[in-house]
Amino acid sequence: MPTAIEKTIRLNQLYDFYGLLLTEKQRTYFLHYFQDDYSLSEIAQVLGVSRNAAFDQIQTAIDHLETYEQHLRLLEKHQSRMEILQTMKALEDPRIQTLIDELERLE
Amino acid sequence: MPTAIEKTIRLNQLYDFYGLLLTEKQRTYFLHYFQDDYSLSEIAQVLGVSRNAAFDQIQTAIDHLETYEQHLRLLEKHQSRMEILQTMKALEDPRIQTLIDELERLE
Repeated sequence: MPTAIEKTIRLNQLYDFYGLLLTEKQRTYFLHYFQDDYSLSEIAQVLGVSRNAAFDQIQTAIDHLETYEQHLRLLEKHQSRMEILQTMKALEDPRIQTLIDELERLE
Repeated sequence: MPTAIEKTIRLNQLYDFYGLLLTEKQRTYFLHYFQDDYSLSEIAQVLGVSRNAAFDQIQTAIDHLETYEQHLRLLEKHQSRMEILQTMKALEDPRIQTLIDELERLE
C-alpha cells in the first residue's frame, strides 16, 4: 500500500502531466490541497464554499487525473524512459550524451 | 500549407494518441470519416442523422484532438524522440541497441 506521502507525490506528478486538461476551478482546489497543503476546512473558508463542496472538487480533479493516466499512461511511460536513459548514461559514451540530454529535455 | 492528405495523416496520428479521450460517439464519426473514408452524406445515411449533424460531430472531434495536442504535445514530442532515436541507431553501437528498442516500444 502506498503511504499518504507517496500518493501525494504521485498525484502531483499526474498534475504535472495533465493539469492543463483540468478546469481552472479544479486546478485551484487541487493546488490548494496538494501543493499549498491547506486543509479542507481552510479551502472551504478561503473559497467560500462548504467543506463537502471542497472535497467534491478535489475528488473530481483526482478522478480526472487518474482517468487520463489510465488512457494515456504518460507518467508510467515517463518513468520507464527515465530508467532507460539512466542505463544509457551509465555507459559514459560521449557520442550519445548530447542525444540523451535532448531526450531528457522532452520529458 | 499542408495538403488534405497531410492533414488527414496528422489527424489520424492525433487520434492514435488521444482517441481514447474522445466520447464513443465522436470516435464513431471520426473513424467513419478519416479511416473508412465515408463522405458526410454516407455517414449521415449510415447513422441516421443530418449531414450538418455529422459535420458538427467530426468538427468537435477534431477540435478536441487539437486542444489535447496543444496542451500535451504528445505527437510533437513523439516525432522529436523518433528523430533522436534514428540518430542514435545510426551509431550502430550494440550496447545501446536494446535500449533504443525499449525506448521505441514506449512510443
